[in-house]
This record gives sequence, structure tokens and C-alpha cells, in this order.
Amino acid sequence: MWPGEAHSLKVEKILYRGKSKYQEVLVFESSTYGKVLVLDGIVQLTDKDECAYQEMIAHLPLCSIPSPNTVLVIGGGDGGVLREISRHRSVETIHICEIDKLVIDVCEEYFPELYVGFGDPRVQLHVGDAVEFLRNAAEGMYDAIIVDSSDPIGPAQELVEKPFFEMIARALRPGGVLCNQAESLWLHTHLIQDMLAICRETFKGSVHYAWTSVPTYPSGVIGFLLCSKDGEPVNFMDPINPIEQQEGADNAGREIKFYNSEIHKAAFALPSFAKRELSTVYASSRLSQSEQGEDTLKMNLVAKNELVTAS
Amino acid sequence: MWPGEAHSLKVEKILYRGKSKYQEVLVFESSTYGKVLVLDGIVQLTDKDECAYQEMIAHLPLCSIPSPNTVLVIGGGDGGVLREISRHRSVETIHICEIDKLVIDVCEEYFPELYVGFGDPRVQLHVGDAVEFLRNAAEGMYDAIIVDSSDPIGPAQELVEKPFFEMIARALRPGGVLCNQAESLWLHTHLIQDMLAICRETFKGSVHYAWTSVPTYPSGVIGFLLCSKDGEPVNFMDPINPIEQQEGADNAGREIKFYNSEIHKAAFALPSFAKRELSTVYASSRLSQSEQGEDTLKMNLVAKNELVTAS
Repeated sequence: MWPGEAHSLKVEKILYRGKSKYQEVLVFESSTYGKVLVLDGIVQLTDKDECAYQEMIAHLPLCSIPSPNTVLVIGGGDGGVLREISRHRSVETIHICEIDKLVIDVCEEYFPELYVGFGDPRVQLHVGDAVEFLRNAAEGMYDAIIVDSSDPIGPAQELVEKPFFEMIARALRPGGVLCNQAESLWLHTHLIQDMLAICRETFKGSVHYAWTSVPTYPSGVIGFLLCSKDGEPVNFMDPINPIEQQEGADNAGREIKFYNSEIHKAAFALPSFAKRELSTVYASSRLSQSEQGEDTLKMNLVAKNELVTAS
Repeated sequence: MWPGEAHSLKVEKILYRGKSKYQEVLVFESSTYGKVLVLDGIVQLTDKDECAYQEMIAHLPLCSIPSPNTVLVIGGGDGGVLREISRHRSVETIHICEIDKLVIDVCEEYFPELYVGFGDPRVQLHVGDAVEFLRNAAEGMYDAIIVDSSDPIGPAQELVEKPFFEMIARALRPGGVLCNQAESLWLHTHLIQDMLAICRETFKGSVHYAWTSVPTYPSGVIGFLLCSKDGEPVNFMDPINPIEQQEGADNAGREIKFYNSEIHKAAFALPSFAKRELSTVYASSRLSQSEQGEDTLKMNLVAKNELVTAS
């Protein structure tokens, strides 16, 4: 995911090395970022900066709607997103569908500050394939769906394709929201353009791109696609449900480290180059809907997957 | 500046390697970030992401005041900050004081897209020491001073100490503004706390911290200290002089790549951990002013310099 460059963390000690049906799992103690979780050679999280990713992917959608009640997490087997959702007292049900049980077990052992998310009695864990899970989900049952997937190679490849987003939209209630991990503006423009184009076709409410700083991710940033289903309008740029002002948000002494309402709003400010690049996407998406049908998008998607696989 | 980790760019070809009285200078062609300038082993800029740094350090101060006229750049020998200042038609005089002529010569040869900044007839170059230059500057002559220094080891060490900021303040007109490179929120909290404490004592207008994404800098971000001298009030968070709406801002076809007014405002949104850490600084700064005198600050500064040198 990071052609022509490398980011190296000094290893103090390898704590775990194993292999599941899906991927290689590695945990090590680094000298300055605490413990590090690596899947198939790609850093997934470190103790030092996981707060930025977990808090943003959870609170960007949940703080954009009033009183979220039923939430689904896809991926997120480390438990960090669950930990953040738990801060919201309005939430009564948290489903999580993680494909790889080994990730959960390894995090139970080595990342107690993330795994703690599984301890919330509102959490129901389903180990299995997300596409299968969504197929069986009741239509319109979720207020919010959070896709905390790994990069779109390996087990997560299906999770950037149109049928997947259509199933997400089906499972959301009208006005429900999706927050999907969406790579780096500096490095993966084509992938983001493709995901945006698909989401603009699928979600008839609003579709926006947000980003934030996560030092140990490629180029030091990570993006999020925020989509709402037709129904109650959602203004993602102006959080109406600010978690930092709510009672119980500190979650038994675990204070929020990164997220706040200003950071939320700031995440939607895009660099000029990105505004230009993403505005051409919107245009080609409209074109493909009205004149060219779906083939163009499918071709874009194939081209993108080749690009990602080759890199 | 990056203990326990490394960021590596694949070298296609070494283009230049030399040594001035002040530092080692290296230029290489990378495989995915274009040409790279390295001083004393620290990446200063790459073709791919220099836009973020140069545009933000120039436009954050210049877009915060109406009709800037006379601007001083300290450091910035690559020319990139000059290139950005040139977009402002109200500016009539641009002074630059760079200590190392070799940096300028190397950029003339290898970074024409940055060195172009020196081609503006409003620019007057002074090769020499910034402290000496400021001592001789007329009091209150600048609307804005931009300190584009390298990290505070080597030739730039003096540039984070109190006497330096006092000289800056003296050279600014009432209501004039300073923008100073200010490291990474993720890595250099102590250094930022010290700089903030000193600036809060020195600048009686307003003092704020802003940050932005620059992938090839440590932890993928860089910060800026924005200070205004007592006089006309300056609201840094709400740019009143938006460059992207001004005629001639594209500077002969060089469109603005990164900066815009939303990115400007967003740069002041700080993560919760940083708000907490920097708020303790403000408190201790007040304490040291009223009760402890300057010694505490000096001790902090010495401790910080040792820390930086040791890393």
C-alpha cells in the first residue's frame, strides 16, 4: 500500500507470530509506539496512535445522528471501535462481524485496552463473512454501520465493490449512516474515486470524504467515506450528537484522546488538489449513471483492483 | 527527530551531495516522491508534498491580515515560501534571510519549481545569520514574518529561544504576525510547550497552534505557531484575506495545490490530547510570569534542547 517508501518501527521484542486461514498475524513491542499489530505485513494499529483511527471511525458517524441505537461493525476484531461505540449511552445493540477469530484472540491477549470493547454486554459477536452476514440481516435494522476493514487486498477485497455497498444500504434504516475506512488522499486517489463513485450511486442521502492524522498509516493519514441513506437528512459536517459533552463518555475512566467536535468538522476540509480530483469523480459518476450505465464503473473498479494488487 | 522509527524513500539516483559550513546537503531522485532535499540527514522537502508545507506556512499568516505589504522570511532558502508569498498582490517587499548559500544554489539547480520564488522582483535576498539580521532591522517594519527553519538542532538551535522571539516581535508592526515552523504534535510535545510558553510571554496579541499533513515529515504532520503583536486584533482562525479568491493567485499558471480557507480553519482544530497538553502550558506560562520569573522557562528550554540533541 506504500510503493517506493517504507515506514519502520524499531522492534524491541516479537510477542506473537501466527497464521490464520486468512492472514498472517504479528504482534511486537516497539520502542516508541508501544505494541503493534501487523496483518499480512501491514501495520494495523499501535498503542500510541490507535486512538485517532478508532475514535474517528466511530464518532464521525455516531455523532452525526441523534441517539444512535443499533450499530453494526464490520471487521474491527481488535475491539477498539467497540470500545468507542460503548461511550454512546443511547446505543442498545452493537453487532460485530469479524471474519478472523485469530485477530480477536490475539488482541484479547496482547491489546487489553482495545479488547475491552468486547466486554460491553451490548456487544454481540459474529465470527464470519460480512457479505453473508449482511445478506441475512433484516432490512433497515441499523442506525449506523462502521466498516473497519483492512486494506482491499486479501480478505477485504470484496468490501470495496458495489454489491457490498448495496447490502450495507439495505441494512440501514432510512437516514442511517455508513462510515467506511477509505485509504489515503496522498496515495490512493484512484481507489477513493472509485469508492466515491459507487457510494454516490448507492446512497441517496449524502456522501462525503473525511480524513485524519494517523502517523503509522501510509503517508500519515487515513480517510473515511461517510454516507447516509435517503430519509432524514444528515449533515455530517456539523455533529449534532457531541460525545465529549455526554455523561458517561469517559467510559470508566478511559478519556477520549483524539476526537472532539472541532476535529470532527475539520476532518471534512480537503486540500485543493483533493477537491479537484474528487470533483471529477462526481462528474464521471453522474455521467456513468445517465449515459454509460454501470460498465464504466465496473471497468474502473477492475483497473483499481489491478493497481492495488500490483503495488 | 524521529526516535524508534524510520521513514525510508526509495532512491532512484543521487543527484547532489555536498557540505557547507553549516550542514550536509543531499538531493536525490526518489521513486514515488520526486526529488528530495535532505539537510543533515533530515528530509526537508519532496516534490510530491512540499505544497502542503510551503502553502500553509505562507498563507496561514498572510491570509489572516488585510493587505500584507512587507514580509520577512527567515530560512526558506529553497524558495518555496517566496513562491507562495508572491501570490499576494498586496505585497510590495519580500526580504529573505537564509544562512546557507549552498541551499539556495542547490535548489536553483535541482528544484526549479521552488527556486522560481527568487525570480520575483519584490524579493531581496540577504545571506547571513537571522539574529544579526533582526538586530539591524528597523522596529515595526514588517507586516508578517515567516520562520521556515530546519529543526532546532544545528544552525537553527537559536531560533527557538526567547531572545529570538523578542527580536521578531520588535521587527513586527503593531498587529503584525509571525508564523513559525513548530514540529509535530505527536512527537515533540515538550518542544511545542516551550515555544508556546515563550510566545505567550512575548506576543501580547494572540498565540495559536495550527497543524497540517505533510507525509514525509516525522509522524506525517507539521505544526505552526501563529502569533500576533499587540495592536489591531488578528483572528487567525477566520482568514479575512482568502488568497484562493484573489486575482493573480495562480502565479503564472502555478495553481494552489493544498491551501484553501477551509483547510486554514481546520488547521486550528487540535486533538483532545493536544488541547489538554497545551492548556497546561498556558497555565504554567502564566504561573512563571506571575510567580516564578523566567528561570522556569529557561530550565524547560535547556531540558528540551538536551532532549532534542539526545534523540
